[in-house]
Amino acid sequence: MLSDMTIDLSFDAAVERDSSDVLARHRAKFSLPEDVIYLDGNSLGVLPVAVGERISRAVDAEWGQGLIRSWNSAGWTDLPATIGAKIARLVGADPDCLIVADSTSINLFKVISAALSLRADRTKIVTEAANFPTDNYIAEGVIKQCGDRHQLVHVASPADIPAALDDDVAILMLTHVNFRDGRMHDMAALTEAAHDCGALVIWDLAHSAGAMPVDLAGCDVDFAVGCGYKYLNGGPGAPAFLYAAKRHLGGHRQPLTGWFAHKNPFAFTPQYEAATDINQFLCGTPPVLSLVALDCALDVWSDVDLAALRAKSEALTDYFIALVEGRCNGHGLTLVSPRDAKARGSQVSFSHPDAGYAIVSALIAEGVIGDFRAPDILRFGFTPLYVSFADVWNAVDRLAGILVDRRWDNPEFHTRKKVT
Amino acid sequence: MLSDMTIDLSFDAAVERDSSDVLARHRAKFSLPEDVIYLDGNSLGVLPVAVGERISRAVDAEWGQGLIRSWNSAGWTDLPATIGAKIARLVGADPDCLIVADSTSINLFKVISAALSLRADRTKIVTEAANFPTDNYIAEGVIKQCGDRHQLVHVASPADIPAALDDDVAILMLTHVNFRDGRMHDMAALTEAAHDCGALVIWDLAHSAGAMPVDLAGCDVDFAVGCGYKYLNGGPGAPAFLYAAKRHLGGHRQPLTGWFAHKNPFAFTPQYEAATDINQFLCGTPPVLSLVALDCALDVWSDVDLAALRAKSEALTDYFIALVEGRCNGHGLTLVSPRDAKARGSQVSFSHPDAGYAIVSALIAEGVIGDFRAPDILRFGFTPLYVSFADVWNAVDRLAGILVDRRWDNPEFHTRKKVT
Repeated sequence: MLSDMTIDLSFDAAVERDSSDVLARHRAKFSLPEDVIYLDGNSLGVLPVAVGERISRAVDAEWGQGLIRSWNSAGWTDLPATIGAKIARLVGADPDCLIVADSTSINLFKVISAALSLRADRTKIVTEAANFPTDNYIAEGVIKQCGDRHQLVHVASPADIPAALDDDVAILMLTHVNFRDGRMHDMAALTEAAHDCGALVIWDLAHSAGAMPVDLAGCDVDFAVGCGYKYLNGGPGAPAFLYAAKRHLGGHRQPLTGWFAHKNPFAFTPQYEAATDINQFLCGTPPVLSLVALDCALDVWSDVDLAALRAKSEALTDYFIALVEGRCNGHGLTLVSPRDAKARGSQVSFSHPDAGYAIVSALIAEGVIGDFRAPDILRFGFTPLYVSFADVWNAVDRLAGILVDRRWDNPEFHTRKKVT
Repeated sequence: MLSDMTIDLSFDAAVERDSSDVLARHRAKFSLPEDVIYLDGNSLGVLPVAVGERISRAVDAEWGQGLIRSWNSAGWTDLPATIGAKIARLVGADPDCLIVADSTSINLFKVISAALSLRADRTKIVTEAANFPTDNYIAEGVIKQCGDRHQLVHVASPADIPAALDDDVAILMLTHVNFRDGRMHDMAALTEAAHDCGALVIWDLAHSAGAMPVDLAGCDVDFAVGCGYKYLNGGPGAPAFLYAAKRHLGGHRQPLTGWFAHKNPFAFTPQYEAATDINQFLCGTPPVLSLVALDCALDVWSDVDLAALRAKSEALTDYFIALVEGRCNGHGLTLVSPRDAKARGSQVSFSHPDAGYAIVSALIAEGVIGDFRAPDILRFGFTPLYVSFADVWNAVDRLAGILVDRRWDNPEFHTRKKVT
């Protein structure tokens, strides 16, 4: 292991770093359990304080009293766009090019279909073998539905992507930050490489939106999707978002042609006529209560400096690596995330040859929540708005204790449960 | 107009009927605005009293305190199935054949795709021209995505359906109760007719589930979809449900192949391998807060006798027709719903040649909420769990006043707003 010897690993130093943290004031916007150090905001973001009251208002006043009238009077009809505009600022998008709808998987189905319709003469979709599996599953689903005329090309490593781009590639589909190891792609360079061969790009921002600044418009991205429940803190299974470049609006087709995607949903015309704006990517009636939670959750971002967010994210993850390598040496943990902070997202993953699941379970039992990803990954997310340097220090302190005393070596920590 | 002279139209008679209504006790389970008579539960059901507290618990305890652990400890992972089982009882389904997911439109996309894969040698989908437009839009979307090899046949009237069924029909897709006029199809007979020609059936139960007993298994239905926010009172845009007959589970394919539809979602295998049970019809991560509201809302049904529900529904709608025809005669209203209660759902629609929208707007302004459906339909839904005979009497009393005094003839009632 290589430790960064320039980082002071004392607890006092952690406290000192927290005292000069310009983002520290945002922690008060979140409702954090007292007995937990939460390093899993990349799975499910924590509850913003304001959401409880906002949801109660949506239930009691808007639904209970306003009833059907609230589609207009409470702005329910506009939620996909109004929430979209809040996310647009975080990912460098024109607000007219981003909407909130359905799940990430379903939105991916829409944009893959749309992109294929724009590159009808090409037959390849290039993805990474290490992409989040559901993204590749959805591409398989589109391909089967379209008559098995396309090929899903699984590239083995990021370095192999440019060589896979040829003039038969319709789509380069990548997740910006890898869910397993946190490796981050160069969005600008890969988008340009795809465009150079005439392909379109689709970026999945599940682990990027709210974790770092993203510049969709500046990178000339064609399509993007992302989820609302990780760094955006929108609540469990919060609706997802979808971005389409202005040049593609109206020019493609997507097959989930529900009434909300119609040019005039309430005319009830017998034939489908697609909206020519971003609404074409909506489908059916959206789940309003979940939308309202996401809408409210996004208000925490109104005064967040995204450059400061990224700086703290890099500092937290560097610090975590230095602490683990400094204090847990000799216990089988190997860093699998990039050592260079510029090359990774806001998470750090270590592998362990045989006890990864048990170590994560022991950590959770002792109040440090990270997660395990098969086959051997311990994954820790660092959300700069509410994770402190002292949290990181305390988490590693507990991890070191669990490893030294082998507290993970307990039958109760070996029973697998489902988590997302 | 024909009035039913056997119905006593006095207010005292309404009060008398309420006093002997075996379902009257259920009204206390709902939070009804005091100043409103709500005849729009077929658009958005009212708030069950228990939901507010249940949602607050999901937000504060499950999300806020439990965080990612609640996927297991609070049963979030199982919600699609546990809610599905509650709906299954209402629609005559084996609980293993029904799940809750996504929207009605998206679920329809899944089952149309699945049914086409099971009838790969056939090219027609038969629907009604008068079907809810989004259902036909979705069928168009599937057809385009599958290479325009299929034909969507729009049958003009219910009587023409049997003649449209030939050995090239893959799917007969119908909405059980028509959204505009409330006409109800004979599910058993049409399903049998479709099967006789080798076709599969898809029923949309949007206006049936919670409005009357439905017998999916008894009618040998292949697939069904329906929504959670009308008679099931699950809240605005509540997630939808999907039914597939046991014989079709595992034997088909549906293209929205998200990780929740995988045989082993958390193994993160590189290739998609479909679940062989009803979970194959899931897709991405579901919106938990909206699911929780629906789950709680369905508990009101635990002690509801569906035969009594249907009897009251028929009585309420018969009563409304008699009152309108008895008290609003000569003001241009024409019944467009079937006069025979056995042939209609739990709604009554009248047309008006030119002032339909304005009359509905005037009614809403005076606290009677129904809705307008283009081009000329005044639509009123009667939800037997919380609408009383006195409500019906008072609603028609106000309607009669609006018509007699032409209170609808006011510019403010002519500006169209969007509603769902």
